[in-house]
Amino acid sequence: MTLAQSIQAAISQVVGTGPVVLHEPRFAGNEWAYLKECLDSTFVSSVGKFVDRFEIDLAAYTGAKHAVAVVNGTAALHVALRLGGVQPGDEVLIPALTFVATANAVVYGGATPHFVDSEECTLGLDPRALREYLQGITDIDQKQCVNRATGRVIRALVPMHTFGHPVDIEGTLAVARDFHLTLVEDAAESLGSTFHGRHTGTFGLMGTLSFNGNKTITTGGGGAILINDTELAKHAKHLTTTAKVSHRWEYLHDEIGYNYRLPNINAALGCAQLEQLPDFLAAKRRIFERYQAAFVGVPQVRLIAEPEGCHSNYWLQTVLLDESAAGERDAILATTNGAGFMTRPAWTLLHRLAPYHACPKMELPVAESLERRLINLPSSAHLGMEGAR
Amino acid sequence: MTLAQSIQAAISQVVGTGPVVLHEPRFAGNEWAYLKECLDSTFVSSVGKFVDRFEIDLAAYTGAKHAVAVVNGTAALHVALRLGGVQPGDEVLIPALTFVATANAVVYGGATPHFVDSEECTLGLDPRALREYLQGITDIDQKQCVNRATGRVIRALVPMHTFGHPVDIEGTLAVARDFHLTLVEDAAESLGSTFHGRHTGTFGLMGTLSFNGNKTITTGGGGAILINDTELAKHAKHLTTTAKVSHRWEYLHDEIGYNYRLPNINAALGCAQLEQLPDFLAAKRRIFERYQAAFVGVPQVRLIAEPEGCHSNYWLQTVLLDESAAGERDAILATTNGAGFMTRPAWTLLHRLAPYHACPKMELPVAESLERRLINLPSSAHLGMEGAR
Repeated sequence: MTLAQSIQAAISQVVGTGPVVLHEPRFAGNEWAYLKECLDSTFVSSVGKFVDRFEIDLAAYTGAKHAVAVVNGTAALHVALRLGGVQPGDEVLIPALTFVATANAVVYGGATPHFVDSEECTLGLDPRALREYLQGITDIDQKQCVNRATGRVIRALVPMHTFGHPVDIEGTLAVARDFHLTLVEDAAESLGSTFHGRHTGTFGLMGTLSFNGNKTITTGGGGAILINDTELAKHAKHLTTTAKVSHRWEYLHDEIGYNYRLPNINAALGCAQLEQLPDFLAAKRRIFERYQAAFVGVPQVRLIAEPEGCHSNYWLQTVLLDESAAGERDAILATTNGAGFMTRPAWTLLHRLAPYHACPKMELPVAESLERRLINLPSSAHLGMEGAR
Repeated sequence: MTLAQSIQAAISQVVGTGPVVLHEPRFAGNEWAYLKECLDSTFVSSVGKFVDRFEIDLAAYTGAKHAVAVVNGTAALHVALRLGGVQPGDEVLIPALTFVATANAVVYGGATPHFVDSEECTLGLDPRALREYLQGITDIDQKQCVNRATGRVIRALVPMHTFGHPVDIEGTLAVARDFHLTLVEDAAESLGSTFHGRHTGTFGLMGTLSFNGNKTITTGGGGAILINDTELAKHAKHLTTTAKVSHRWEYLHDEIGYNYRLPNINAALGCAQLEQLPDFLAAKRRIFERYQAAFVGVPQVRLIAEPEGCHSNYWLQTVLLDESAAGERDAILATTNGAGFMTRPAWTLLHRLAPYHACPKMELPVAESLERRLINLPSSAHLGMEGAR
């Protein structure tokens, strides 16, 4: 048996026969009832009780003081960076190993992404390597971190909790503090993941969530900003609702705002999905355990487990090939996808994409190694539900 | 009877007893069936058959060669301007009398709005006044229209079809041609409105629609770009779906894109709503006729009718006070809203808003007069359905 065939057999042991997609949502709760309530009330759009309830439920679940629901995770990050003081011409530190939306959100505000390496134990930003790098290339000037090579202020730091595995947020917070950087957590993938018992996305000044169709819970399209500061939360709500000043009939907008409201109909879906999140998380943990058993004895492959002290949502199950087997990655992807088991590699590292070629970056040996070796496996919650194979 | 009381009585004659909102959607078709189909298929998010169908149905209805569904009307305009060649540092001509989103979309691309006056017969951009103004303040240099005062290129022109009434699009097209301006139509309010038989939004290089909850048909939140050029339509789809290059598993993005996809669940709502559009339009025309009858004999007030040669969707019914009665506008708003009939004035002219104070503008005598005198009346389709009072 080739390595590709062994991996295909291990996947099949967990998910049965294909075709099986990478991640699909499950609607087994009150989705129906809440959507009907929306239609019957005619409140499907920007105002409605499900938007308010979804925000309250998200805050309660994550332990954030406030949650502001928005149209998607990219919008959440765009607004969070603006509220975090990022200005045109600034630089923002983000991992090279992340979905392109993290970088796009930086660019929307006129700033430049600056790419950071990852560490293998979390798949996320490496705070030790980053600290050493910043010590070498920056000066602190009037409590601002200045990139000596570009002359630009490095204003913010955006760690991302990769595939739901919490980054070393304590180490990252220390770097942010020491270098006067605003910390915004990209928690798009990590709803349900905690670091030493505290929910991801609640450590930074703000954290952002995504409820895209491929996420642990979905609103069709949607996102949220988690915020502990009440004034900041009010400002986030204002900016995401066209910055309209409240008035009985006048139309006054006091700054450049966005049409980033989450429609009530999408929030209704979110409320129903959030009720099922504990079941989804249990199922996803069960899938991890089954993959763990199935991959015993498959050589040159390691299943990624949650970092120490962390509780991961296991959003996307992930294997890492040994460096010696990295050359077989594409054969493995072809074999498994060919057999109907959807697998995929890591995102292409962002500094390799045409629009981001010219951005500043540190050496990225770990991210480059992860890129060569990483494969995501089918991970839908229903695969781990009781009764499922 | 005061003027305010007369107006209240006329409204009541059409809509019965309050409370009546300005505009609410009506779900009396296949909304339910299509939403259920979405949930049952689990395709609620960015890919799904309703997105494709909604785009095909919109193109068929409007006569545009292509329609690209997006997350809202603001996003549609943002992308249309970028595709229309608007670059950071450019100026874009837009009416001062429009919703703030028209200006925001210009700013998102790094350009500056330049405000244009309206004409009373359409409530939209006045092409004759604009031509005279541009003749005075611009030079044509290498087929570019340069604002002599600011030195910036005026790149595009965005007329808006106010409350569904078509602007003088022929006159506007002639100005665009003569001054080398890209014309993008903001047709957010005018789905169902035609100019000499041709649908609004299909005259310019692109046109943009909105399906916000207050519009003639709604998707919760949503919008679309109407495009006759096939290459441009492909590019619009690419840009609005994170500019991802199609590949079986690789994640490659070849330019800075946006997460502006319309979720399938919102498109499902749109498909059902679009089926009912002819009924909604008939109902809204009936409401206009009833208001016309009700306002006979009310002094100092004129109900706005569709411009000559045009067919308006009558999205929002509108009265104009005589200049002599403009001082009573706020009393009328207070009286009618106090009685439970939701009315509202025109948007505050954009050059009065703090973020747009410093933008260039022509003299705006007509827009200023309309701002003082204009009042929107309750206009929901269900008010004009057979059987409704």
